[in-house]
Amino acid sequence: MSRNFLQEFLEAVAERGRGLIGLERPASPVRSADLLALSNALLTGRGEVSGVALAQQWLDAYAAADEEQRRHHLAALADGFGPDQPRLDAAIEAYLQDKSPRAMAELSVAAEPRRQELFRRLNRPAGGTAALVRLREDVLAGLPGNEKLEALDADLAHLFSSWFNRGFLMLKRIDWTTPANILAKIIQYEAVHTIHSWDDLRSRLEPSDRRCFAFFHPQMADEPLVFVEVALTQDIPGTIAPLLDLERKPIRAEDATTAVFYSISNCQVGLRRVSFGNLLIKQVVEELRRDLPKLKNFVTLSPVPGFMGWLKRELAKDEPHIPGVADLTVLEGLFRPAEQGGTGPTETMREAQLAAAAHYFLAARTSSGAPVDPVARFHLGNGARLERINWRGDVSPNGLRQAGGLMVNYLYDLDAIEANHEAFANQGVIAASPAVRKLLKTVEAKPARRKPAVPALPPPAANSKTAGRPSSNP
Amino acid sequence: MSRNFLQEFLEAVAERGRGLIGLERPASPVRSADLLALSNALLTGRGEVSGVALAQQWLDAYAAADEEQRRHHLAALADGFGPDQPRLDAAIEAYLQDKSPRAMAELSVAAEPRRQELFRRLNRPAGGTAALVRLREDVLAGLPGNEKLEALDADLAHLFSSWFNRGFLMLKRIDWTTPANILAKIIQYEAVHTIHSWDDLRSRLEPSDRRCFAFFHPQMADEPLVFVEVALTQDIPGTIAPLLDLERKPIRAEDATTAVFYSISNCQVGLRRVSFGNLLIKQVVEELRRDLPKLKNFVTLSPVPGFMGWLKRELAKDEPHIPGVADLTVLEGLFRPAEQGGTGPTETMREAQLAAAAHYFLAARTSSGAPVDPVARFHLGNGARLERINWRGDVSPNGLRQAGGLMVNYLYDLDAIEANHEAFANQGVIAASPAVRKLLKTVEAKPARRKPAVPALPPPAANSKTAGRPSSNP
Amino acid sequence: MSRNFLQEFLEAVAERGRGLIGLERPASPVRSADLLALSNALLTGRGEVSGVALAQQWLDAYAAADEEQRRHHLAALADGFGPDQPRLDAAIEAYLQDKSPRAMAELSVAAEPRRQELFRRLNRPAGGTAALVRLREDVLAGLPGNEKLEALDADLAHLFSSWFNRGFLMLKRIDWTTPANILAKIIQYEAVHTIHSWDDLRSRLEPSDRRCFAFFHPQMADEPLVFVEVALTQDIPGTIAPLLDLERKPIRAEDATTAVFYSISNCQVGLRRVSFGNLLIKQVVEELRRDLPKLKNFVTLSPVPGFMGWLKRELAKDEPHIPGVADLTVLEGLFRPAEQGGTGPTETMREAQLAAAAHYFLAARTSSGAPVDPVARFHLGNGARLERINWRGDVSPNGLRQAGGLMVNYLYDLDAIEANHEAFANQGVIAASPAVRKLLKTVEAKPARRKPAVPALPPPAANSKTAGRPSSNP
Amino acid sequence: MSRNFLQEFLEAVAERGRGLIGLERPASPVRSADLLALSNALLTGRGEVSGVALAQQWLDAYAAADEEQRRHHLAALADGFGPDQPRLDAAIEAYLQDKSPRAMAELSVAAEPRRQELFRRLNRPAGGTAALVRLREDVLAGLPGNEKLEALDADLAHLFSSWFNRGFLMLKRIDWTTPANILAKIIQYEAVHTIHSWDDLRSRLEPSDRRCFAFFHPQMADEPLVFVEVALTQDIPGTIAPLLDLERKPIRAEDATTAVFYSISNCQVGLRRVSFGNLLIKQVVEELRRDLPKLKNFVTLSPVPGFMGWLKRELAKDEPHIPGVADLTVLEGLFRPAEQGGTGPTETMREAQLAAAAHYFLAARTSSGAPVDPVARFHLGNGARLERINWRGDVSPNGLRQAGGLMVNYLYDLDAIEANHEAFANQGVIAASPAVRKLLKTVEAKPARRKPAVPALPPPAANSKTAGRPSSNP
Repeated sequence: MSRNFLQEFLEAVAERGRGLIGLERPASPVRSADLLALSNALLTGRGEVSGVALAQQWLDAYAAADEEQRRHHLAALADGFGPDQPRLDAAIEAYLQDKSPRAMAELSVAAEPRRQELFRRLNRPAGGTAALVRLREDVLAGLPGNEKLEALDADLAHLFSSWFNRGFLMLKRIDWTTPANILAKIIQYEAVHTIHSWDDLRSRLEPSDRRCFAFFHPQMADEPLVFVEVALTQDIPGTIAPLLDLERKPIRAEDATTAVFYSISNCQVGLRRVSFGNLLIKQVVEELRRDLPKLKNFVTLSPVPGFMGWLKRELAKDEPHIPGVADLTVLEGLFRPAEQGGTGPTETMREAQLAAAAHYFLAARTSSGAPVDPVARFHLGNGARLERINWRGDVSPNGLRQAGGLMVNYLYDLDAIEANHEAFANQGVIAASPAVRKLLKTVEAKPARRKPAVPALPPPAANSKTAGRPSSNP
Repeated sequence: MSRNFLQEFLEAVAERGRGLIGLERPASPVRSADLLALSNALLTGRGEVSGVALAQQWLDAYAAADEEQRRHHLAALADGFGPDQPRLDAAIEAYLQDKSPRAMAELSVAAEPRRQELFRRLNRPAGGTAALVRLREDVLAGLPGNEKLEALDADLAHLFSSWFNRGFLMLKRIDWTTPANILAKIIQYEAVHTIHSWDDLRSRLEPSDRRCFAFFHPQMADEPLVFVEVALTQDIPGTIAPLLDLERKPIRAEDATTAVFYSISNCQVGLRRVSFGNLLIKQVVEELRRDLPKLKNFVTLSPVPGFMGWLKRELAKDEPHIPGVADLTVLEGLFRPAEQGGTGPTETMREAQLAAAAHYFLAARTSSGAPVDPVARFHLGNGARLERINWRGDVSPNGLRQAGGLMVNYLYDLDAIEANHEAFANQGVIAASPAVRKLLKTVEAKPARRKPAVPALPPPAANSKTAGRPSSNP
Repeated sequence: MSRNFLQEFLEAVAERGRGLIGLERPASPVRSADLLALSNALLTGRGEVSGVALAQQWLDAYAAADEEQRRHHLAALADGFGPDQPRLDAAIEAYLQDKSPRAMAELSVAAEPRRQELFRRLNRPAGGTAALVRLREDVLAGLPGNEKLEALDADLAHLFSSWFNRGFLMLKRIDWTTPANILAKIIQYEAVHTIHSWDDLRSRLEPSDRRCFAFFHPQMADEPLVFVEVALTQDIPGTIAPLLDLERKPIRAEDATTAVFYSISNCQVGLRRVSFGNLLIKQVVEELRRDLPKLKNFVTLSPVPGFMGWLKRELAKDEPHIPGVADLTVLEGLFRPAEQGGTGPTETMREAQLAAAAHYFLAARTSSGAPVDPVARFHLGNGARLERINWRGDVSPNGLRQAGGLMVNYLYDLDAIEANHEAFANQGVIAASPAVRKLLKTVEAKPARRKPAVPALPPPAANSKTAGRPSSNP
Repeated sequence: MSRNFLQEFLEAVAERGRGLIGLERPASPVRSADLLALSNALLTGRGEVSGVALAQQWLDAYAAADEEQRRHHLAALADGFGPDQPRLDAAIEAYLQDKSPRAMAELSVAAEPRRQELFRRLNRPAGGTAALVRLREDVLAGLPGNEKLEALDADLAHLFSSWFNRGFLMLKRIDWTTPANILAKIIQYEAVHTIHSWDDLRSRLEPSDRRCFAFFHPQMADEPLVFVEVALTQDIPGTIAPLLDLERKPIRAEDATTAVFYSISNCQVGLRRVSFGNLLIKQVVEELRRDLPKLKNFVTLSPVPGFMGWLKRELAKDEPHIPGVADLTVLEGLFRPAEQGGTGPTETMREAQLAAAAHYFLAARTSSGAPVDPVARFHLGNGARLERINWRGDVSPNGLRQAGGLMVNYLYDLDAIEANHEAFANQGVIAASPAVRKLLKTVEAKPARRKPAVPALPPPAANSKTAGRPSSNP
């Protein structure tokens, strides 16, 4: 089809995808108490005929409801809109008697909670998708300690995985000619390296050696779903500060050999567990390779948000011991805050810290057997390999608090991604470069002369921030 | 200035929405025999990482397969990709012990056939949606007499109802500035009143008193899903010929009082039972009302495809009797083909034919209790009312064969639609104008002097054509 | 997301570029007799303030005027809106006394006819440009034998050369996804090889080995200015019929080595002498080279519209003689119409006809010293060279009548264009391939035994058609 | 034409209109010394054939030249590319003998400086228009005291008035969804009320009661030409601060009765004297009336940049006297800077200052008979009337320095614009409201007891800034 026709058409899609429900609409006359009645009406024949209008009323009423009313209504949805139980029971009985294709098909239909059809109908009006994503934010907020909402959340996640199917997502370059309202959201959603001003933003978008890409969905056209910031360089960087320096001198994109993914941020809390990040990285790699055939390396420059927490837990053990680290006490200084004279990692800590880090990445495991570091789990799960551990890579207060100043590079080698992923998923093998492997000292360390002193401080703010954000992966 | 943001973005959507799978791609190296292996691979972890490429291979292989191979593969999908049975059985057992929300949720997940996840993954590459719609055409073609495919078909229909959710559809005006490739498809898909040439098409699109609207989906951007042709007039027309006359003199749109929906055509066989027609009519009504506030009446000018078949069956009964028709023999002439001197309905038949038609619409029912006429079922189900029966409304060969020349108008009164629909759906009440009701003579007719003679001809070509087309509603 | 910036902006340009003046506007209340008053008002201060509205009135009135009124008004413009004579005379006097820069500048301003400012103001409303192009059609129609209109025409041509400056033109590919209204104009404006139907059109646009490009102007956005049709082939074709064959089998664009410009048509009579054709060819060559790097040859397949007329004039001379043609009588048969048994060029004529054609192209000259053939003048003037003369290249009735069946190829060799052009423009050198040069026999022919018989027919229809069309160059 | 086709087409226009010459192009190999040779080549036949490439070289070379080289080259253009003098002299002679239309036409052509054709050819490459606008900046910068450049400047102005003809301009709304690169230019070009930050910008664009419109040209698509900022209010404001308050509470656009044009800025120095401002205001008025039919008043809130300068000159006269101001000494305090304890206008000055202002607007004249205030000349020349003088309307440092704190409203009454303009243009009548007229006291004031003291300070910085900006009209 001609780009033109499509353009007009999709512009209209965009037009509809824009508004959140309730925006610039007079306060709804429907009281929140009517939501239940509306929900029921939507699931009847009347819903079929007047569904769009009813759904609009529902969404308006929900948007106008206060927190208490919403909570109440979500509970009602969780309780009352499960499967049609008599039908389900009959389907089970039939299935148990004869496991025929028809019986299975009927069972599949009967087991579907009525909520799912309700949500499909709520998705009909303009802005419905965005409104349901917002609604799931409420569900997620109420989730901890509320088992009733789990099924509701699962239903939404299931529908979203259909609606936000990768086939419906569009990769879009973000640059300095992008509309300001989108850029304001990039500033707002950046979760890894805070964007401090429009000048800061411009320095990440406009220079010839910078790129930014985001996924969008036609029904939420002014809302990025996930975005990645990329620096084009001539070698693999180990520290973040020079990349973000406003005064640095750009190189020509054609002269770059390396694309550095230095920040990935998920934007929509309501889309949690509908994963886009790995798709984004792979598609951006392909896009960059097409545009800039000279690019050879695709790496991240990533934070290590779990290192200090893990180290603290290790040191707090009765007989602290990290293989390869002869003297753990040398690492105590990492925990000394700047205001108490802490200087961050010093040269004397270097070897010990790198050995501990290698152990942290390659050997340490969570109770469920996964790598401890959440960012590592993300990239290793995508099939990347741990390429380099950078000592004093991020000596910002946050970098020191989370990672004792460490940063790492994960390498995306398209030829190895699949094998890496399979080995990781099936046997838990962690792909790592020889240089990283070498850090994992095999000589056994002597026991610590004394138990290292670790401050009994509350968990650092930065950790909780990272945990609280929907995702800030690399 | 930059090429703009939305444009680029949506252009890319378009770019991806365009192609059918396999188009301009060299013949796939993957043999059809590998489809099963690919299907399995897609459902593993490998599918998560390399899903898009695998899915593309699958779709290419399917596109390259011959009919026999496809049939074989569809059967394999129907047989082997149902629910994970051990998991399902366990979920049932848990549910039967405790009907908790969690048990229900698990049951719902466990009961879902693995095909659905497979299709979701096949939907990831560009063109996936269109390819799956084509695949369902194969399923539908194989459906009659093949119970195995039913579940497969139900899965596709279920997914399509999510993916083609009304919230994702876009209404688009079709006019003389629409790209030619789209217009060529309008010509191809028109199912009610054949478009004979580009001049004919132009005369339906370009004049000030003509409109045409279609629904599109972002992932199939050069494929209309359903379209409606509209004439703007100053009264409710009873015959089709003047509307289609190439020489007619247009009126100004602002002078029109009536919008006549004279042709609705579904375009995609593969989307059968994913209903768009009623949404289309309602949205077009709103669109027209906004643009042309003087419009008062929204009516169809519709064929009556079931009338002659029904009449023939009535006359063939042992004691044929249609209430209100005194002498059934007068209607015999309707069955005489033109080549045998048939002239279509004559003045002497008028009263009898109209009475029979009123009975056909208002009183006759199928075995399942629905109105006999399929077009009537569609519009009455949408909440329209039967407004007028037009004697000699379409005296084309096809119009005579199907309907003895009758056409009807259905009226869309937005204020009454919901009530009409509910009365129809719940109590089977057929909304009709007083004028139509009056045709339903209450005086009992005298018995026929003799059994009317009805030719024992094979079912007329036109009927089978209408039946064979995906849908041609009004 | 917002409807985007450029879209909105350019959409508005489009919106304004669309309409011809008067379209869908009620008949103007301004009588044509007021045009003069309006013209004067437009040139006053009132024109500065209310210029757009006044200009709109002017254009509406002109559009509503009949032929007589228009002629009258154009004469008034020609008579009364020349330079401000007192100011001009003063400027001349000042200049003659002191040829200072200021005096020259003032003279330049004073010598400008007031019409030019009038037309600039008429260009202000939406559609003004298109309306003035239409107006010039009237001027051109009235031009022959009307010296008064010459200055008026020169003023319009002068302004158009600014407004249609190459910097404002946009090359646009025309294909099967182009809006139908544009395509209808391509059918209408094709001046070389008539497009017989939409299927014919489609066969020239849609196959992988066909291209079509047009120039557009932002202010006349639905009017192509000039377009060229291109065939991608594997050798240089000598005959037109296989290129236009609806049944031919396309090749892949990537496999083509040769781009054949087989039809160029100017579309706007009112833009005569504002030349686009040479710019178009060069830009299309660049476009094609970028897209299809394997393309080696860029040639035309061109008609020879002046050959038979020239040959007839030669044969009608008292002592007809064409160097290299031994026996002119053999060429008589070329003039025999089909209905009188004429068969077009036969093998016995071949050598003589090719020799005559070589003389026609390389040696014959008009009274002003230019090549006789108008299409040759166009391409040679562009810097192309005459590559091949094709015997029986176009044996359609028109091809026989104009050219005795001849077609030729002109070669665009970008490296040689400039030198060819200079040699042609400055020394009248005609660039030709060795093969063509060889046809120009140097041996002196023996005198004709008898004066060839040439029919005293009126000039053939085809010639007048070509002459009457704005331009059909190759 | 369909919006689509156009969109694609014009997007391409935009694409080409984007870049300034030389952007992202390697340093030109053409030395600046070659510019003269290139200029000559462009005017020959070679220029016709290879014009675009030659022009591109010219523009690249000019862009790469340093200031000295540019000055040198502009002088060469001014000297050597005037009219073809022999032809001009011959044309004059012919004209003097017979003032025929043909002689006039030839004279008009012969009198045109060859520079104009040169510039038309330089306009052919992409970006040519923007490059010539930049070039004129150089001309203007060199103009004072350089009579040679005057003719050059006149030629550019003449061409620009054709190329930037109102018919080619597009009005575009600027809002928060406008691309950031455009918005950055709005910040840069704002000449009346400095935009201090992106938040400040957002507060002028995003709220429901704010509008901003700009004119663009297809060939300079990322460069606004002139823009106006509008506040929608419920009464005519007298002070600027509340309009710019970041904390103010927006009203709904539908509730506004008044549109306040509170800032107009020309953006392109190189387009001086190619006036857009009056067209912009009128078109914005029409646009707003269409969108918001409840709007009744269209007014400016304008600075009075010339008041304090004028007042100072008046007070510095030997016998200072302003009719209606009894005691001029009371106005002395207006000149006392804040750092010397000045408080701006106090209540005791009010009456005197308003009377002086009324005299300044209604009675005072420049030596050429025009109103003294430049902003007044602009709006009165557009046909607006002086509606209200606002005492202490702008007590910012700049407002006090320029205008002693005064601001005024000009009213655009579309029904009166033309008459106002004519009366102003022809008889110098200044349209003013009764309220303003009333301020012009007729009672004769008593002579000042003493000559008021006026500081002999250098002209305040703010004045020179305003003078230096291309234009900041209201």
